[in-house]
Amino acid sequence: MTLKTERTRVRRIPERGHYDKEIIYPIIDEALYCHVGFNHNGSPVVIPTIHARTNGTLYIHGSAASRLLKSIPGENNICVTITLVDGIVLARSAFHHSLNYRSVVIFGKGEIVEDPQEKWNALKAVSDHLVPNRWDDVREPNQKELDATTVISISLEEASAKIRSGPPGDDDADYALPIWAGVLTTELKKGTLIPDPVLPDSIGIPDYLKKGSL
Amino acid sequence: MTLKTERTRVRRIPERGHYDKEIIYPIIDEALYCHVGFNHNGSPVVIPTIHARTNGTLYIHGSAASRLLKSIPGENNICVTITLVDGIVLARSAFHHSLNYRSVVIFGKGEIVEDPQEKWNALKAVSDHLVPNRWDDVREPNQKELDATTVISISLEEASAKIRSGPPGDDDADYALPIWAGVLTTELKKGTLIPDPVLPDSIGIPDYLKKGSL
Repeated sequence: MTLKTERTRVRRIPERGHYDKEIIYPIIDEALYCHVGFNHNGSPVVIPTIHARTNGTLYIHGSAASRLLKSIPGENNICVTITLVDGIVLARSAFHHSLNYRSVVIFGKGEIVEDPQEKWNALKAVSDHLVPNRWDDVREPNQKELDATTVISISLEEASAKIRSGPPGDDDADYALPIWAGVLTTELKKGTLIPDPVLPDSIGIPDYLKKGSL
Repeated sequence: MTLKTERTRVRRIPERGHYDKEIIYPIIDEALYCHVGFNHNGSPVVIPTIHARTNGTLYIHGSAASRLLKSIPGENNICVTITLVDGIVLARSAFHHSLNYRSVVIFGKGEIVEDPQEKWNALKAVSDHLVPNRWDDVREPNQKELDATTVISISLEEASAKIRSGPPGDDDADYALPIWAGVLTTELKKGTLIPDPVLPDSIGIPDYLKKGSL
């Protein structure tokens, strides 16, 4: 299945463009958060938020009271962009410096999820995406909390991925220069667990939070 | 100096909102990249790119041939959002899960930098922001490369920061639950240096790229 449309066709350096869900979905799934762009009173607004994907649907959520979240659903187009930065590309020329990255740009319309089961599943998917197995360990949302939360779905029908990987690409003449060149890798790392200061000592770290499980 | 306007006033959880450049500028400077939102043919479009700040001006750059970059300058409003994710907040209830983050939202208009010296300084600032001292070590841009590059400036006059830090905030009744709660820290880490496969062995790693310097 291709998610390529006239709008998602990558024009700059087209060989970096990809339109297959086999490439796009893993990037969406690996990213901890996304950036949602929408129009509000004629201005573009971009906000970071967490997300989850279930089959061909992307879910985001937020406070039902959020002024911005109210701008998303309906006929307005939105754009969700997901970016994983894998490294800094150190070329021999300033011009050919770059990042190694995997990014996805999704165009679509946001719809409020009204069905209670789909809403529940979406919230669980967002939780599982953030920390697998956490949902089963914590107090589930009550009706008041569900009512205070808006879940928005975006159908993944129009999207593109753009990927740069590998060593720098320098001008032929520059390869003779005595300049160190290569890639400095970067990664969003999960680090240490800081217990809530009021957590009783008797409550140990669950297995699913231990190093190697995350 | 406050960068608060009606548009940048943080409405959701207003105690997380900040408008002082003393708080906003360090977030901009720490981030490796940003997301730029603008309208293109009536659709919001969000693209990731690298940036640098010089005093009260944000610079981004790209190919002069870029269709998208051509949409940015002029009377259209743009929104630049910068997000640093510091941790996953593991609350006792699903509802109070969150991220610790420092984000900045900037509204403004993009202007093409025409002055050659300002353009040069901006490109050097972007390079220094990516890897300090790298610019002085590599081949500088030639005229053809400068002509192929568009630099856009955005005046930092209207911006807000939103910050969440610290342990989870659970409902009073939930603190009695025997559930591990706290924060899992996250950080965009610089990792290892991978030499270009065609780099001669005689070219060693410069000091400014060695661990501890980055």
